[in-house]
Amino acid sequence: MERRRRVERLIAVTRYLVEHPCQLISLSTFGEELGAAKSSLSEDIGLIKRMLDREGEGWVETVPGAAGGVRYLPELTGAGARTLVASLAQELSHPARFLPGGFLYLTDILFTPVIMEGVGRIFAGRFRLFEPEWVVTVETKGIPVALFTARALGVPAVIIRHESRVTEGPAVSINYLSGSTRRIQTMSLPRRALPSGARVVVVDDFMRAGGTARGMHELMAEFGAHVLGTGVLMATREPENKLVPDYFSLLVLEEVKETGPELKVRPAAWLEGG
Amino acid sequence: MERRRRVERLIAVTRYLVEHPCQLISLSTFGEELGAAKSSLSEDIGLIKRMLDREGEGWVETVPGAAGGVRYLPELTGAGARTLVASLAQELSHPARFLPGGFLYLTDILFTPVIMEGVGRIFAGRFRLFEPEWVVTVETKGIPVALFTARALGVPAVIIRHESRVTEGPAVSINYLSGSTRRIQTMSLPRRALPSGARVVVVDDFMRAGGTARGMHELMAEFGAHVLGTGVLMATREPENKLVPDYFSLLVLEEVKETGPELKVRPAAWLEGG
Repeated sequence: MERRRRVERLIAVTRYLVEHPCQLISLSTFGEELGAAKSSLSEDIGLIKRMLDREGEGWVETVPGAAGGVRYLPELTGAGARTLVASLAQELSHPARFLPGGFLYLTDILFTPVIMEGVGRIFAGRFRLFEPEWVVTVETKGIPVALFTARALGVPAVIIRHESRVTEGPAVSINYLSGSTRRIQTMSLPRRALPSGARVVVVDDFMRAGGTARGMHELMAEFGAHVLGTGVLMATREPENKLVPDYFSLLVLEEVKETGPELKVRPAAWLEGG
Repeated sequence: MERRRRVERLIAVTRYLVEHPCQLISLSTFGEELGAAKSSLSEDIGLIKRMLDREGEGWVETVPGAAGGVRYLPELTGAGARTLVASLAQELSHPARFLPGGFLYLTDILFTPVIMEGVGRIFAGRFRLFEPEWVVTVETKGIPVALFTARALGVPAVIIRHESRVTEGPAVSINYLSGSTRRIQTMSLPRRALPSGARVVVVDDFMRAGGTARGMHELMAEFGAHVLGTGVLMATREPENKLVPDYFSLLVLEEVKETGPELKVRPAAWLEGG
């Protein structure tokens, strides 16, 4: 029986940690739930930590002290990240995806949770150490990138709208030049959406010149927020100098103009390194 | 050593199943990965199934046959669903959330993944047996409801836009009367987004008269899609008869006009039953 109860505990704790990413659970909570002593639980969690840390898809953090506990931090790094991005590059290089004006049909990929969960974990692996409190994007196609990055970081997302909603109280609006629509657009965020001094990361699905990303940086400055990093699922290779100084993308869209309207999607160079 | 290897297997299989919801994994895949015989794995999976089914937060399905395997289907039913919805009702009843015109500030809740993941699991528990292939919503605030419902069902989401995007090819557009903006709006979906005969569920964050939901039903009819169900996070109690025949909501917004502009959020009645 003792042995059976230990295996049951291991399953229950593993399931709870993985299903509640980033939530700190105290050992006493687990202990009450499972009827186990702290010493047994500590041993269980040591084993779970060794198993979960091993696979490069996340890790278990134990926080000491009275307010401490254990939490699972999902990420996707190394070979797992390279495999996902390589398969996306292959899928997105299909000629049927190439749209007029040098665009790519990304929408189905963006709204497939099983893919975007992996993308969110890659971003979480890059951003977690900066301790962001919010993930910011602009509607509409940036939303899945933001939501799944926020899920893996254990924080909320904040969505900038194109129009200000009268129903959501005072808002800050700025104008920016969008590369994808090639016109001046407005982005707007209600004051109540972010407190002053918030630590944020900015994400989006696609970057050409970086006008939208720069607009988000400017809007964040209006809120007194600290932008800790910028990530996009895909960036074009040209222009090489974007309007935001630092960003990283998972995919690069090459435009091979010499041989006609030919596009090609490659994994970003930093992923090759390791 | 044998005992240690078994506990490691249990942790690894539990983690993989929970982290890849709805994906069917064959026993031979697990076997190769973990260096275990099918008979040991079957026993492990039996134990994992008993533990995971027990908690009312999902269940493990085993599919027999050569193309079979095992998968984890996340849901939230019974007491877990009631607890989540009751805590949402309490949070959303806070007077600071009441907006001019009888609206409620929901945005921060909608974009908090740890909450919306639970909401998506409740919807998945209601819709799974209809075997939907897509979860459909209209931008912007319906998107998190759709994405997390889609995640728990293991299918993609399809997002209807307010403008048709010239870059995404031929699109179908319809006009509808939106209760929240109180004006005629357009909704549009590219032809390539859904094949004819698709099995879909329709979700949204908020329903007043049901004009937006009916618009989505009409647009789905243009695509030859079968609408298997309609779910909203919150519906107003008045008007009682909505423009769509069947829907279910998790929360009900009451308007108590006699005593001034007083609003109250309650869990929907069907949740009380069990």
